[in-house]
Amino acid sequence: MSSQFHQPVDAAKVPRFAGHSTFMRLPVVDTAKDLDIALVGIPWDGGTTNRAGARHGPREVRNQSSLMRRAHHVTGIQPFSVANVADVGDLTVNPIDLQDSLKSIEDGIRAIVEEAAIPLAVGGDHLITLPILRAVSSGRKLGLIHFDAHSDTNDRYFGDNLYTHGTPFRRAIEEGLLDPKRIVQIGIRGSIYETGEHDWAKAQGVRIIYMEEFVRRGAEDVMKEAVRIIGDMPTYVTFDIDSIDPSMAPGTGTPEIGGFSTREAQQMVRLLSDVNIVGADVVEVAPPFDVGNVTALAGATMLFELLCIVAGQVAARR
Amino acid sequence: MSSQFHQPVDAAKVPRFAGHSTFMRLPVVDTAKDLDIALVGIPWDGGTTNRAGARHGPREVRNQSSLMRRAHHVTGIQPFSVANVADVGDLTVNPIDLQDSLKSIEDGIRAIVEEAAIPLAVGGDHLITLPILRAVSSGRKLGLIHFDAHSDTNDRYFGDNLYTHGTPFRRAIEEGLLDPKRIVQIGIRGSIYETGEHDWAKAQGVRIIYMEEFVRRGAEDVMKEAVRIIGDMPTYVTFDIDSIDPSMAPGTGTPEIGGFSTREAQQMVRLLSDVNIVGADVVEVAPPFDVGNVTALAGATMLFELLCIVAGQVAARR
Amino acid sequence: MSSQFHQPVDAAKVPRFAGHSTFMRLPVVDTAKDLDIALVGIPWDGGTTNRAGARHGPREVRNQSSLMRRAHHVTGIQPFSVANVADVGDLTVNPIDLQDSLKSIEDGIRAIVEEAAIPLAVGGDHLITLPILRAVSSGRKLGLIHFDAHSDTNDRYFGDNLYTHGTPFRRAIEEGLLDPKRIVQIGIRGSIYETGEHDWAKAQGVRIIYMEEFVRRGAEDVMKEAVRIIGDMPTYVTFDIDSIDPSMAPGTGTPEIGGFSTREAQQMVRLLSDVNIVGADVVEVAPPFDVGNVTALAGATMLFELLCIVAGQVAARR
Amino acid sequence: MSSQFHQPVDAAKVPRFAGHSTFMRLPVVDTAKDLDIALVGIPWDGGTTNRAGARHGPREVRNQSSLMRRAHHVTGIQPFSVANVADVGDLTVNPIDLQDSLKSIEDGIRAIVEEAAIPLAVGGDHLITLPILRAVSSGRKLGLIHFDAHSDTNDRYFGDNLYTHGTPFRRAIEEGLLDPKRIVQIGIRGSIYETGEHDWAKAQGVRIIYMEEFVRRGAEDVMKEAVRIIGDMPTYVTFDIDSIDPSMAPGTGTPEIGGFSTREAQQMVRLLSDVNIVGADVVEVAPPFDVGNVTALAGATMLFELLCIVAGQVAARR
Amino acid sequence: MSSQFHQPVDAAKVPRFAGHSTFMRLPVVDTAKDLDIALVGIPWDGGTTNRAGARHGPREVRNQSSLMRRAHHVTGIQPFSVANVADVGDLTVNPIDLQDSLKSIEDGIRAIVEEAAIPLAVGGDHLITLPILRAVSSGRKLGLIHFDAHSDTNDRYFGDNLYTHGTPFRRAIEEGLLDPKRIVQIGIRGSIYETGEHDWAKAQGVRIIYMEEFVRRGAEDVMKEAVRIIGDMPTYVTFDIDSIDPSMAPGTGTPEIGGFSTREAQQMVRLLSDVNIVGADVVEVAPPFDVGNVTALAGATMLFELLCIVAGQVAARR
Amino acid sequence: MSSQFHQPVDAAKVPRFAGHSTFMRLPVVDTAKDLDIALVGIPWDGGTTNRAGARHGPREVRNQSSLMRRAHHVTGIQPFSVANVADVGDLTVNPIDLQDSLKSIEDGIRAIVEEAAIPLAVGGDHLITLPILRAVSSGRKLGLIHFDAHSDTNDRYFGDNLYTHGTPFRRAIEEGLLDPKRIVQIGIRGSIYETGEHDWAKAQGVRIIYMEEFVRRGAEDVMKEAVRIIGDMPTYVTFDIDSIDPSMAPGTGTPEIGGFSTREAQQMVRLLSDVNIVGADVVEVAPPFDVGNVTALAGATMLFELLCIVAGQVAARR
Repeated sequence: MSSQFHQPVDAAKVPRFAGHSTFMRLPVVDTAKDLDIALVGIPWDGGTTNRAGARHGPREVRNQSSLMRRAHHVTGIQPFSVANVADVGDLTVNPIDLQDSLKSIEDGIRAIVEEAAIPLAVGGDHLITLPILRAVSSGRKLGLIHFDAHSDTNDRYFGDNLYTHGTPFRRAIEEGLLDPKRIVQIGIRGSIYETGEHDWAKAQGVRIIYMEEFVRRGAEDVMKEAVRIIGDMPTYVTFDIDSIDPSMAPGTGTPEIGGFSTREAQQMVRLLSDVNIVGADVVEVAPPFDVGNVTALAGATMLFELLCIVAGQVAARR
Repeated sequence: MSSQFHQPVDAAKVPRFAGHSTFMRLPVVDTAKDLDIALVGIPWDGGTTNRAGARHGPREVRNQSSLMRRAHHVTGIQPFSVANVADVGDLTVNPIDLQDSLKSIEDGIRAIVEEAAIPLAVGGDHLITLPILRAVSSGRKLGLIHFDAHSDTNDRYFGDNLYTHGTPFRRAIEEGLLDPKRIVQIGIRGSIYETGEHDWAKAQGVRIIYMEEFVRRGAEDVMKEAVRIIGDMPTYVTFDIDSIDPSMAPGTGTPEIGGFSTREAQQMVRLLSDVNIVGADVVEVAPPFDVGNVTALAGATMLFELLCIVAGQVAARR
Repeated sequence: MSSQFHQPVDAAKVPRFAGHSTFMRLPVVDTAKDLDIALVGIPWDGGTTNRAGARHGPREVRNQSSLMRRAHHVTGIQPFSVANVADVGDLTVNPIDLQDSLKSIEDGIRAIVEEAAIPLAVGGDHLITLPILRAVSSGRKLGLIHFDAHSDTNDRYFGDNLYTHGTPFRRAIEEGLLDPKRIVQIGIRGSIYETGEHDWAKAQGVRIIYMEEFVRRGAEDVMKEAVRIIGDMPTYVTFDIDSIDPSMAPGTGTPEIGGFSTREAQQMVRLLSDVNIVGADVVEVAPPFDVGNVTALAGATMLFELLCIVAGQVAARR
Repeated sequence: MSSQFHQPVDAAKVPRFAGHSTFMRLPVVDTAKDLDIALVGIPWDGGTTNRAGARHGPREVRNQSSLMRRAHHVTGIQPFSVANVADVGDLTVNPIDLQDSLKSIEDGIRAIVEEAAIPLAVGGDHLITLPILRAVSSGRKLGLIHFDAHSDTNDRYFGDNLYTHGTPFRRAIEEGLLDPKRIVQIGIRGSIYETGEHDWAKAQGVRIIYMEEFVRRGAEDVMKEAVRIIGDMPTYVTFDIDSIDPSMAPGTGTPEIGGFSTREAQQMVRLLSDVNIVGADVVEVAPPFDVGNVTALAGATMLFELLCIVAGQVAARR
Repeated sequence: MSSQFHQPVDAAKVPRFAGHSTFMRLPVVDTAKDLDIALVGIPWDGGTTNRAGARHGPREVRNQSSLMRRAHHVTGIQPFSVANVADVGDLTVNPIDLQDSLKSIEDGIRAIVEEAAIPLAVGGDHLITLPILRAVSSGRKLGLIHFDAHSDTNDRYFGDNLYTHGTPFRRAIEEGLLDPKRIVQIGIRGSIYETGEHDWAKAQGVRIIYMEEFVRRGAEDVMKEAVRIIGDMPTYVTFDIDSIDPSMAPGTGTPEIGGFSTREAQQMVRLLSDVNIVGADVVEVAPPFDVGNVTALAGATMLFELLCIVAGQVAARR
Repeated sequence: MSSQFHQPVDAAKVPRFAGHSTFMRLPVVDTAKDLDIALVGIPWDGGTTNRAGARHGPREVRNQSSLMRRAHHVTGIQPFSVANVADVGDLTVNPIDLQDSLKSIEDGIRAIVEEAAIPLAVGGDHLITLPILRAVSSGRKLGLIHFDAHSDTNDRYFGDNLYTHGTPFRRAIEEGLLDPKRIVQIGIRGSIYETGEHDWAKAQGVRIIYMEEFVRRGAEDVMKEAVRIIGDMPTYVTFDIDSIDPSMAPGTGTPEIGGFSTREAQQMVRLLSDVNIVGADVVEVAPPFDVGNVTALAGATMLFELLCIVAGQVAARR
């Protein structure tokens, strides 16, 4: 019964600008115990190769999530009525030590997973998805729905560095965390390092849907294919805010023009209800580069869209 | 004859950055006497439940309206040649007294209406439309074309408060100012307080066209239906700038991603020529949250679009 | 013993950008029970006559207070070691009802005072100090150290409105909450409504130290006089951020050039250790008008300076 | 009698954000007829060698001048009670033709002077002072009080161009508009083109008070000397906003750190009461480079300070 | 062979924020000798009738072009492998002398053309295209693909001034530099000075595709017509950034809502591969009005798109 | 003879906004060979514990250094006439590997030192000074003039991490690079981790001049002591931009109110002419947090001030 679940502060009673800013104005809890879904911040951008700032993402996404209300106007889902959701705070990270941080993130997510809660994480740069996958996969090879301007399957940067926000999915495939044949990348665009940059990923079986194909086919057709590829096995959803156009999401480290509209992004996420989601994230919101907080607002809203989908699945399974 | 009408300062003679910033660079007049259309500012945001700032809207919309020229490039209408238009200044408002302000606004608009001029108002938050409707309705039940992200038909906020920018159209229906069966709301979207939030409005007969339906059908089809519902009886047009996407209109109190493009908004307003418009407004432009003045520019241009439509009707009636 | 007291999160362990942003990174508690000092937000600006925005003050001051550490570098005071301090959250306010809000604020502060905790409030506009004084005075006439660009002793605005952020201290004197002969206003400057604007206050015995006198005499000399005037009876300290120069505190509703430097402001507050402080506030931080968060940073630091002074007094009394 | 004079809109009746933004919220008049003092905008920056934008200065200074009230808190002067002052609008300028603009500005100011009104101009870049001096000098060699970071007595730029905002006072001396022995430049600082850059000016008799000398001696001592040098003959006062420190006036084309505080600037202007002022200006406010409008606010306040001084002289002469 | 050509700094070796910011991180060279394509800045906005600032365009476009990589993700073209490209620096301009600047620009471009290199210029306001055409036409009448919100075929401004950024293509037609029957203008929109403003251009044979026609037909259909009209004779491509919507390109002097998305702009430029391009430019990027550098990013990316097309043609001709 | 030396582009010939932005508009050279002074960028902020962004410092400082001219207005020094100075570009750094970067920076500076040039570096966060000192010390124990809000002599962060921007001078003392008895830290202020935070440094003999002592004594007196302590042995000068007040330098990672004015900072640097300077830096300029580029301008000007001092010493030694 919903009355047992955590409820957000009601904006018709307490104004949105009042009170502590937590994800969706939910209570803060210490552990994921008894939660169905754990909203968690991962304020770390140590894998960023160009413009850092995503470390400040969780705080601003929390701030803008004050604008979210309790029900989804299209699906009618009221996530806080059908699932127990709370803000479990930020994972401990280390801004000056990459490996230490990857370890902390993995441990933090594992603690959530071990409580049988589904983690919805807010980054942080895209390298955080690697330790999340290490924790969530639990020996299984997961599928991946990946919204992004970039494939993030490069090999090395700055000499022999294997771990940056440009490499997480190559590493995840190599580590056996993901089944490359069940990876769909959508929205890929922008100039690339060399013509064959994506050849490795394609050779593994990754399905790359470039922005141009998306524009031709539309969200519905593309998502039908994506869902078919993913099937009904456990799948992770990762949403890089730079998949959205820089006009709607300027506050990110590596913007590429010609991106998704927020409308298209919302439409696609709403079509994920049949995917077996075991975790999700919104990454690369970098407030120091944002203007008027529109990027954090987009991030908070995409988090709400993901939350509604996952909450619906939790309810269906109950 | 146009030579009798007020004319804007010509930007090919006096640069746009020079001179006092009035609506459309028109002369300022004291009353609506002899005017066909009165451009009027209502700098008040006392009904705002979250982020105030729309009180500064009229000044910045005036500022950005310096960019408007004399003719509409699609319809060819030259509003200042076919109608007498001027800037009648701002209505007196009281930033710390809600009821006093509602009274002042109603009186101010009534003075315009009594001169047989059509008021085109720039807000201010959306609660200003309630006293405008009180003045414009003159005992008639008006139709309403309502562009917005929000239905604004809630009942109460913060206890038993009846008057906020989330309630004007519920009050207007209750007060008999609007015929709910001739209300069309377009662009509604974003999370809602509860799944049944819009049930009251729908039960009254209000036609809510959610953003998702709009995207599916397109502007032309939607507006055809809207115009059919409205018919040829007197109708008010209210344009909440938050109907437009936050990337194009970030400077507003309650942004919701996934909104209209300005293109779509322009297209819809241009399809209003057969509606019997007795007044219109552009509301919720909140400059303190704007970036690069794009919201005020969008507001000024939508005001120009509305002006061209109304001026065309004035000319047709002459 | 300090180990019993609430401690802030340590920035050498958890980075400043991580974790929920509470005042000074302290724990959030529900009541002031067992506290010596209660940090409380009052996000309300319904008394603002020009540019609203101070409703967003508490959230941003909390945010910037992440930069505070545990010890004062000049006095050596470690406030969290000698006093029990926590963030008691925001008082409930009503953005569209002035009298309702004044009542709520008074009740909220009274609840703190009744727990024998000293309230350190963050506004909000300056009208919030009136209900705070109603709660804190408890029948006594308090003294007042008042840092401000404006005397805030006007009588009425917009007709007969008695309650705005330009009138709180006139009302407080009239209501017998303050002893006008023990009021010192420091930093007053800027154009005034009429030459005799301050005559009423002076006639009551208020000591107004204009900015020009301050510049001539310096902080030490001025504060010596202020402390002498105030004596050892219970006194409230109110710090309007617009007392500081707009270059250092642009994010405020009514900026006046020629203000205090932050250095001077810090120096003055540090000279308050012999004043018997029963409550204090930092008001008029208006983030929508801030640039680079410097105003919120100044507000957070002045809050820390006040906290150190009050904590020192708590320790001395223990 | 003051009742005959133009009065600003009263902010205790009409909020500062309401109404058209004119200088000091004064009425707009067509000519300087019957005025003692004419506030005039000169939105032109065609002499700018680096960052243009001062063309937008008059509009933003008008905007920020809404914050001015009717009386000076130090001198007690109520300028609108003792002198007839109004906003005469902007002079016509041509953004793409330098000589045409110089001519227009001269003509526009001459029209003011011929009505026996004293022009207080808001630029525009510093080259506008040259045509102003041509109009105001009327055959006399004027004295000049010149607040600036730069001497503006260079000879040529970009080949043989004689007219830029770096050359006006060299030209004015050459044209016999100024008596170089009665020119005092205060606040000069910043790197220079070559070590001897100021030699020409000094050879003419110009007294240059570098910032370092100002800091050593203080405002009072420096102004005593300045007033002595100027004597009681007709004098023009020009205030380049870049004389103020970039922290307080970032919105300008050629910022130089280490400038005046606004306090010091106010103090100096207040010491001009014995100077025989025949005209004055505030120049180089460039809103596109401003942050939080602090520069325009500083410009508006310095204009008010100048206005109070000149109004006091008008009253004294009456 | 590509090894002989200039190569950009590799962002996987040297981070994008490091090193001097040149166009595409290419080497700076003194002349266009041995180049196939010369990237050249023209930092001049002396033809601007309203908001100047495009003089700062080249520097910021260079800055943002650090985000470009070496290959085009759709066409696979690696421009630096198939053509010799470099940054030849900025042409010398004179911010205070229009005719002098037009002459310098023409001379500068002629020097590039005489080395048989194709100039890709970054402005600067749109008047720079006139002297570029003078240099590039070399006696031929060129075709023109013109992306813009404005036709820029007005006759005069501010009296009899023939040369502004609103007139270059009228002058170019009059001077015989362009064949008006081979001019296609795409994206034209926004209010106009009078209903017949475009009649002159249309009478010359210019094909104006208004935004509304573009929206109806789509990029592919429109570009098919454009390419057919242009034929295979030498053609210049000019891309005014204000053709793009102000949400994606706010940093420009004369924004008009309802513009191209960047996606549409990219799609159109990619369809130019069969046009015989002899030069191109990206103009009207005005950084002082930009927010979050999105306009400069859009400009840099459109430059990259143009570069890839032209490089492909260079390779095909080799 | 100066004619042999590199000269900056002349702003009276080429406007400041034109041309590539290099330090002081000087030529870019590949090595420090034949240079007296090498201006070098170190775009790295991997030691930052809170707000990163100083990696973008060199680019923006270069940009703002376009405003510098060739002569110092107080000392008359023309640095480019008496010393050979150039921009040697940025050192290669690795944004995701701390130790790799420390190594690269040390190597890069050593290459400069080995050419007998004096490095003037622009950071980057303050940890870069550690590898610079490793290269510059060459076995000697250097003296240190250290302008900063923070002592930067902490021991560890985030567990056992020895290398952050809060620890460089502890490490440098431990490594024997600095003689602690010849270290003077000026401007220290702001809350500290614990009351004894500076005890270690003081025990080593470091002289800490807190801001409050500076305010009491003034720049001249303080610098006299500093110069006396340092003596005539080789000394390094490090200028952390956060020593300056956040109103004048908001763009930095760890702002503390109550800082130096730029005037005071300039005055102090000008008093260094008798110090035997073997290298210097300006660090912690973080453009993503800057407003209106005032911090980068302050950084560029302080770099110019240091350059003039060092150039004067070079000339004196010649």
